[in-house]
Amino acid sequence: MNDTAEAEVVLGNLVTALQMLGNCPEFTYLIPEVRVNLAYALREAQTSEDVAAVEGRVTAVHGRPHAAGMPGWGASDHLARRLLEVRKYDPGINAVINFKCDQEIIEVVQQYCMEKGLLLGAVDRTEEPEEVAGRDGSSMPWKVKQLFKKYGVMPRIFYEGAGWGKEPLFLALGDSAVEVTKTAIDIARRYSEKISR
Amino acid sequence: MNDTAEAEVVLGNLVTALQMLGNCPEFTYLIPEVRVNLAYALREAQTSEDVAAVEGRVTAVHGRPHAAGMPGWGASDHLARRLLEVRKYDPGINAVINFKCDQEIIEVVQQYCMEKGLLLGAVDRTEEPEEVAGRDGSSMPWKVKQLFKKYGVMPRIFYEGAGWGKEPLFLALGDSAVEVTKTAIDIARRYSEKISR
Amino acid sequence: MNDTAEAEVVLGNLVTALQMLGNCPEFTYLIPEVRVNLAYALREAQTSEDVAAVEGRVTAVHGRPHAAGMPGWGASDHLARRLLEVRKYDPGINAVINFKCDQEIIEVVQQYCMEKGLLLGAVDRTEEPEEVAGRDGSSMPWKVKQLFKKYGVMPRIFYEGAGWGKEPLFLALGDSAVEVTKTAIDIARRYSEKISR
Amino acid sequence: MNDTAEAEVVLGNLVTALQMLGNCPEFTYLIPEVRVNLAYALREAQTSEDVAAVEGRVTAVHGRPHAAGMPGWGASDHLARRLLEVRKYDPGINAVINFKCDQEIIEVVQQYCMEKGLLLGAVDRTEEPEEVAGRDGSSMPWKVKQLFKKYGVMPRIFYEGAGWGKEPLFLALGDSAVEVTKTAIDIARRYSEKISR
Repeated sequence: MNDTAEAEVVLGNLVTALQMLGNCPEFTYLIPEVRVNLAYALREAQTSEDVAAVEGRVTAVHGRPHAAGMPGWGASDHLARRLLEVRKYDPGINAVINFKCDQEIIEVVQQYCMEKGLLLGAVDRTEEPEEVAGRDGSSMPWKVKQLFKKYGVMPRIFYEGAGWGKEPLFLALGDSAVEVTKTAIDIARRYSEKISR
Repeated sequence: MNDTAEAEVVLGNLVTALQMLGNCPEFTYLIPEVRVNLAYALREAQTSEDVAAVEGRVTAVHGRPHAAGMPGWGASDHLARRLLEVRKYDPGINAVINFKCDQEIIEVVQQYCMEKGLLLGAVDRTEEPEEVAGRDGSSMPWKVKQLFKKYGVMPRIFYEGAGWGKEPLFLALGDSAVEVTKTAIDIARRYSEKISR
Repeated sequence: MNDTAEAEVVLGNLVTALQMLGNCPEFTYLIPEVRVNLAYALREAQTSEDVAAVEGRVTAVHGRPHAAGMPGWGASDHLARRLLEVRKYDPGINAVINFKCDQEIIEVVQQYCMEKGLLLGAVDRTEEPEEVAGRDGSSMPWKVKQLFKKYGVMPRIFYEGAGWGKEPLFLALGDSAVEVTKTAIDIARRYSEKISR
Repeated sequence: MNDTAEAEVVLGNLVTALQMLGNCPEFTYLIPEVRVNLAYALREAQTSEDVAAVEGRVTAVHGRPHAAGMPGWGASDHLARRLLEVRKYDPGINAVINFKCDQEIIEVVQQYCMEKGLLLGAVDRTEEPEEVAGRDGSSMPWKVKQLFKKYGVMPRIFYEGAGWGKEPLFLALGDSAVEVTKTAIDIARRYSEKISR
C-alpha cells in the first residue's frame, strides 16, 4: 500500500468508527467533560500532523455521539502526542480513544478485562513528581513511562486517576480506530445495562 | 488490497475531497439549487449501498462549502445510480461530482476542456423521448446511453441542459473523489476569476 | 417590543421550528431536491438582509431533517425575495417554508386543505409568458401576481408546477416559522401514513 | 412580553451570541478542555429545563468557534444549575459563559477588569471543605456561596482555580448571552494580541 492509500485508509477507518459511535446512544454515558477524541497515526508518524483525529472532538447532540467536524490531519494535539509517546514502548499501536472514568465505569472495565483476559492499567497521578506535574508537556511522557515500568508491557486499556486540574480518563489503545471504538462501545453497552438495572 | 481496506480508501478519499472543497470558498459559486454531492463506488459495486457519498450533500455555510454529514454507504441515491449506469459503458470510472450549469459556467468549462485536451459532453434533454421523460428512473439510462452513442466514449465531463422540472447540471467523472474534486475546484477558480474581473 | 427583541424573537422562533423538524423523521419524505428552507421577515423588512433563514438549508442526515447551519440574517436569497413580494399583496404574512411537490403529495394537501377549510393555490408555469421566464428574477413577481389575481387573496398554501429547469415545489405561508412548520409537519405525517399503508 | 416571546428572545439571543463567537477566531484560544457553553435562563426558571444552552457545547473547527448543535432547553446541566444557584444571590443575572483559565489569561482579565472598573472574583478550591468536594453536586452551591460571602456581591466575572480532577475555569455572568459573549470576545482579542506580540 502506498502512502496516499495508507493515509486514506486511516481517514476512512476513522469515518467508519464515527459511524459506529453515532449509532450507539449508550456511548453518550461515557463522554467525559473534555469530550472524546479518536486518533490514528500513520505507521511512520513523527509529529501530530501525521496523526489524524476528529476536528472539534466528539460530543453529544440529541442523545447521540456526534463528531463536531471531519477527521483531519493534526486535528488533535493531546491524543496525538500520546500516541507518539506510547509507540516508543510498543510500536504496534496505531490508534487511541479516550472516555469517561469514574468508580462505576472502572468496575465495568475490570469485569470486561477479566472476561477478555486483558490487562487493565492504571496511572496514579498522586505519584507524579512535582517537577513533572508543574511543567506543561512533561506530564505525559512520565505517565506513559510509569505505565510501561509498572506492567512491563503497554496495557491496551488503562485509566489515569484525577490530577490537580485534570479530569480522570480512560484510554483504549489498539491497531485501528475501529478496533478501539469497538472496545469503547462494548464497555458503554455494559455500563448502560448496569445503570438501567 | 482487501475489501475492508478498499472500503476505507473510498471513505478516506471522500474525506480528503471534502477538506479540499472546504478550503475553496470559490466553489460556493458552483453549488446548484439541488446542492452538490460526491459519490465513489467500490470496484465491484452492484447497488447504491456499495457506493459512498456525503450524507445530506454539500451546501454553503458562511461562504464555504460544508458537508452536512459524514461520507457513508448508500448516502446518495441519484448519483450512485448514475455511477453504476456510467460504468456499464466505461468500467474505469469510480467517482462523480455534480455542480451548477449556466451559460457562463459552460464557457469556462469549454475553455478548461480545450486547454486540457478534454472532450466536453452535452446531453440535450429536449431530445428525450416522451415515454422516457415521463417515467421515473428511466430518464437516467437514456441520458447515459445518449452520451455514449453521441461521442463513442464516455466524456469525463458533461452537462445536461434543463429539463421539465429539472435543473441543468454539470457532472465530472473520474478515478476518485479527489480527482473529480480537483477538476471542479479548478473550474470554480477560473469562474470566480472571470466574474470578479 | 423593540427592534432587538423583535430580531431575537424571529431567530428564536426559527430555532424552535428547526427543533420541531428535527424531531419529525416523516418530514424527510417532503425534502425536495433543492432542499428546504424556512424564512421569517422582520415587520419592516426591505431587503433579504432583513429576513432570517437557515444557513445552508435543511437537509436529511441519518433519516432526520438537519439544519446545515444556524438561522441567520440574509441566509436565503430566493425565499426572502419571495416573502417580500408576497407581502406586497398580504402584509400579514411573515414566514414561509418550501417542500416537495408531486402528484401524491398534492392529493394529501388537497385533503388537508379541505379538512381545514383552507384555500389551496396553484401556479401554472406553462402560462408563464416567455419574456418573463427567460429573464432572471422576473419570474417570481409574475408568479406571485398570478396567484393573487387568480384567487383574489394570497393563498396560505400553494404549489408551483414544474418549469423548464425548475423543480415543482409547495410553499406554505404564515405568521411565523413555527406556524408554517406545523403545517408542513402535519402534511408530512399524513403523507407518511398514506405511503406506509 | 408573553412566555412564548420570552422563550424566543432567549433562543434568538443565543443564536446571535453564537454568530458573534463564530466570527471571532481569537476566541479559540479561550476554549478550555471541557469546551465552552453559554446558558440563558427564563426569568422564572426553576430547573435546567427552563434554561437554554448549546447542544454539544461550542468547540473549535478549522480555527473558528463552532456550535456542535442548536440552542435548546435543558441542553446544559452544569451551567444551568450554576445559573440557578447564582440567582439565589443576584436575581438580575440571566446568562453565563465559561472559558479557559491560566496564569496568562488571569493577567489579561485583571487588566480588563481594572479598565472597566469591574470586580474580579476568585474561588479558591483549596479552601473547599472535604465533605463538600467529595459529594457530587454539593461543590457548586459551596463555591457560589463562598464567592458571595467573600465579596458581598456576586462578581460578574470570576475564576475557579484548579481542583482535584477539575480544570480551572473562568465564568462571566450577565443580563444576556450576547452581553457575556461580548465580554468573552473582548478578553479573547486582548489575549490574542498579548500572545502574538
